[in-house]
Amino acid sequence: MKLSRLLSNTHKEWPADTVSKSHGFLVKGGYIRQVTSGIYSYLPLAQMISLKIIKIIREEMNNIDCTEVLLPVVMPRELWEESGRYDSISDELLRFEDRTGHGMVLGMTHEEAVVHLARTEATTYTKYPFAVFQIQTKFRDEVRSRGGLIRTREFLMKDAYSFHTTQESLDEYYQKCYDAYFRIFKRVGLKNFIAVESDTGMMGGMGAHEFMLLCDIGEDSLAICPNCGYSANVEVAKGIIEKNDTVAADLIEEVDTPGVKTIEQLQELLSLPKERLIKACVFDVAGSNKPLIVFIKGDLEVNEAKLKKVVNAEIKPRAAQENDGICYGFVGPMGLELNKFDVIYDISLKDGNNMVCGANKLNKHLVGVNVKDLNVKEFKDIYKANADMLCPICEEVHLNISHGIEIGNIFKLGDKYTKAMHMTYTAANGKEETPIMGCYGIGVGRLMASVLEEHNDDHGPIWPISIAPFCIHIVAIKYHDEKVNEYANKLYKELSLKYDVVLDDRDLSAGVQFADADLIGAPVRLIISAKSIANNEIEIVTRDKSVCKKVTTANIISEIETIVDKLRKEYGKE
Amino acid sequence: MKLSRLLSNTHKEWPADTVSKSHGFLVKGGYIRQVTSGIYSYLPLAQMISLKIIKIIREEMNNIDCTEVLLPVVMPRELWEESGRYDSISDELLRFEDRTGHGMVLGMTHEEAVVHLARTEATTYTKYPFAVFQIQTKFRDEVRSRGGLIRTREFLMKDAYSFHTTQESLDEYYQKCYDAYFRIFKRVGLKNFIAVESDTGMMGGMGAHEFMLLCDIGEDSLAICPNCGYSANVEVAKGIIEKNDTVAADLIEEVDTPGVKTIEQLQELLSLPKERLIKACVFDVAGSNKPLIVFIKGDLEVNEAKLKKVVNAEIKPRAAQENDGICYGFVGPMGLELNKFDVIYDISLKDGNNMVCGANKLNKHLVGVNVKDLNVKEFKDIYKANADMLCPICEEVHLNISHGIEIGNIFKLGDKYTKAMHMTYTAANGKEETPIMGCYGIGVGRLMASVLEEHNDDHGPIWPISIAPFCIHIVAIKYHDEKVNEYANKLYKELSLKYDVVLDDRDLSAGVQFADADLIGAPVRLIISAKSIANNEIEIVTRDKSVCKKVTTANIISEIETIVDKLRKEYGKE
Repeated sequence: MKLSRLLSNTHKEWPADTVSKSHGFLVKGGYIRQVTSGIYSYLPLAQMISLKIIKIIREEMNNIDCTEVLLPVVMPRELWEESGRYDSISDELLRFEDRTGHGMVLGMTHEEAVVHLARTEATTYTKYPFAVFQIQTKFRDEVRSRGGLIRTREFLMKDAYSFHTTQESLDEYYQKCYDAYFRIFKRVGLKNFIAVESDTGMMGGMGAHEFMLLCDIGEDSLAICPNCGYSANVEVAKGIIEKNDTVAADLIEEVDTPGVKTIEQLQELLSLPKERLIKACVFDVAGSNKPLIVFIKGDLEVNEAKLKKVVNAEIKPRAAQENDGICYGFVGPMGLELNKFDVIYDISLKDGNNMVCGANKLNKHLVGVNVKDLNVKEFKDIYKANADMLCPICEEVHLNISHGIEIGNIFKLGDKYTKAMHMTYTAANGKEETPIMGCYGIGVGRLMASVLEEHNDDHGPIWPISIAPFCIHIVAIKYHDEKVNEYANKLYKELSLKYDVVLDDRDLSAGVQFADADLIGAPVRLIISAKSIANNEIEIVTRDKSVCKKVTTANIISEIETIVDKLRKEYGKE
Repeated sequence: MKLSRLLSNTHKEWPADTVSKSHGFLVKGGYIRQVTSGIYSYLPLAQMISLKIIKIIREEMNNIDCTEVLLPVVMPRELWEESGRYDSISDELLRFEDRTGHGMVLGMTHEEAVVHLARTEATTYTKYPFAVFQIQTKFRDEVRSRGGLIRTREFLMKDAYSFHTTQESLDEYYQKCYDAYFRIFKRVGLKNFIAVESDTGMMGGMGAHEFMLLCDIGEDSLAICPNCGYSANVEVAKGIIEKNDTVAADLIEEVDTPGVKTIEQLQELLSLPKERLIKACVFDVAGSNKPLIVFIKGDLEVNEAKLKKVVNAEIKPRAAQENDGICYGFVGPMGLELNKFDVIYDISLKDGNNMVCGANKLNKHLVGVNVKDLNVKEFKDIYKANADMLCPICEEVHLNISHGIEIGNIFKLGDKYTKAMHMTYTAANGKEETPIMGCYGIGVGRLMASVLEEHNDDHGPIWPISIAPFCIHIVAIKYHDEKVNEYANKLYKELSLKYDVVLDDRDLSAGVQFADADLIGAPVRLIISAKSIANNEIEIVTRDKSVCKKVTTANIISEIETIVDKLRKEYGKE
């Protein structure tokens, strides 16, 4: 297209209130505009990229025998009541009433809808296994959307669902999808991404992986072993907790700890390492009026995602309240009124000897506590892995904690939805059985932003050729010059037969033209000026600066072909 | 694909509660499933068709320099308050609050969103004219969705918007889009469609056309002149109203008309033609507490769409109420308390002589009323055109009233939205001006259903080759037979390189296989059996039954090519 026909404007300044490079460049370059918090319109540049990403996703999903369907954005509440999620999901699920007063929800995910669709069709074992996907708008009423397209309230998502009669079949398809995701992310141009074990969260189920672009602005923390490759979201990660080899104490003593409120203060007062302290954290649990008290080794943090799974309910740290029987700051395992509280011990406390804990009395702690004397029935894994821990698999080196943007996720859902929604099939032996499911998601807009986070320089995006809005950007300097105009248009026409080309036909200064070309980020740039035409030499520059040379006009087409072919081989299927 | 892998089931019986052929076949054939009233999931067959329709629409929109964008489904209420439609549109517009209590709407159309997007970008005349489109889910909370995909509450729509600095520019682009729509409808396979003048409805603006598939189940009534080609939706259609050549009466007399409630009863009682009666209709007008009384010639109907436009507000027929000063059944123009009512006279009454009207007294009418004596200031065009009227253009023949399904619409919006939402650009002379707009819609699902309404027989859809889910359907009879299996798969592989092919690999009776092939509606069918392989002869049948012959296996590929090429020429671009 001609650049003068592009609706969007670029901005000169770095846009205010942008929190990441992708956010900033998408606004500055005229790709997206915010409509309201977490909701954006896509200008043509973003839509071009989006369509190219969708094409890649569609191809790879079709390649693993996943068939496209379309499920509704608006669903009746009954569907979500069947699965139980109408009540279990909080305000992220947007609920409303239609004109007749019928309860509806805006789809934030489509397990319910796909089970509704599949259960009337896949009624016999001969239909299995099968998988379907859709590319559809979703709405998730996030408390705090952030980062431009990284986390929005409305977003386009590819979500796929597979159905199986055996665990082996699910495992096999899960692996196929896992591999397809690697191909998708590679084809859109990502380099530094990994798959990590992850929490199943509100999806439920038997196991999950997230695909993470390693990236400083990522919201997720990942534990990665640089030795054996173990990797997991910190929400589920394990690590080797250093053994406590302190010998058991003989005597428990009460000590004064006036005004001590934090583990740090306690550590200082008693001159003991944090590992010798028993930390207490108090939580409220949805659906329970008993506070939950969690004990963990003093140098560790409670992992709320793990804890939530253990108690199987929403939790939140409890704000101190007067007269609730909890002596905040001095909570300990001894002398608690067990009928008033639920108590969980983290696995890190096992074998703890000669520890310090709260005495459940103001300004008092107990020293000399041996955990084995506390008669703990069961220890739970609710700690947060950190860089002080050894890898749980190879046990050789410490974990790295990195940040990542979640660019995709896959879940083994098992029978959570099929069972709740009474989906069955007739097995070969004539019995009615419940199928099991997997689900597989990729957010299109977030993927676009993630590619941009990884592919940019100070001047703008360096779009991989597989998803760039344009492949070739012709900068015609002084477009009104008759010879420039003529040659630029000739080249534009010729190249447009084979490539997505944009011609900067605006009579602006070369500086503005170059700046805009940087913001549009086409992989190959041709610079045409009166002088270059006179010299029969056109300048070719790649956006990543790896190529910058003058080519005679006679050779320009073949030279471009060579460069484009080389760039395409880096990504894509070539 | 292999048919055994298709998720959907066909139904043996005609589905209950289906109101049209397209509805019935889409359910029976396993294309769609209802999720709740007016909301459907698309199974793979429907999604395949949908994607092919989208591709055609996208190509034709790109061809008229319309660039693709993506606007949000969920919008903040402020946007709709800016345009004034937050209040002016009734319950079809779904309003709700997000988790923070912020008012939101679900987009049923996107004028507000596109102006919001364009007004920060197109700030100078050099950007004009331009046009953008999106293909996005919309939600319209229809009171009564009907007909499967003909009228749904959630639907996928291509909506385009153009922006101009002059009326000529808008007119020119409007014509371009008009032409593109003809190409789109032709390419998806429609034959019997026309463009008609239409009402601008809630869109507002300066003129509009609807594209109508002529079809008995259509909800819209169209006035069409079989002579000169004049065509208009009855909502706006005109017609030549026969002159009343009755001579003026000298005397008005009150007559007894006991118990007369309808025009028919009055006509019978007085033995007068309906044309000699003055019919009164009473309406409530939104935002007004005065009832509106409309007078029209007795043989005509009031056109509520026209009336709504005249009063510029929502209207509905008033239910009779006691003590509201209206003598229902006997309302007439003489002796009305004009401060209590608004009154409108239809143009059909002009020159009416010696008429009969209500006396505003129970069981009384007046005869001998000459309209010229009523001192009517202005007559309005609020009649409904009918088949008794001559064409308003050629004035030679009577209008035909046909039914049509609206498959697309185009509007000249003028400055309704740009002005209300303060969109301006700097003109060449430096002044700030308001641009004008056009908008252009096509519903993807409705188009699919409309094609089906036109292309079917008793057994199922006859999909045009341009949008058929599969081009070729191979029926392998007794698939378990080794030779059949081998040959069918060989042919399937070979043809799949060039065409969308489905192979019926199920071990079912030939009868079931043929019935399902009819429901899937692929244009070309190949029938392979042990016998046909032994005879080296394959049967080729087209879905429309125009071809049915046996072809030697040696010639099968070239024969298919010939048939497909011929079918493609009927539709498609060439």
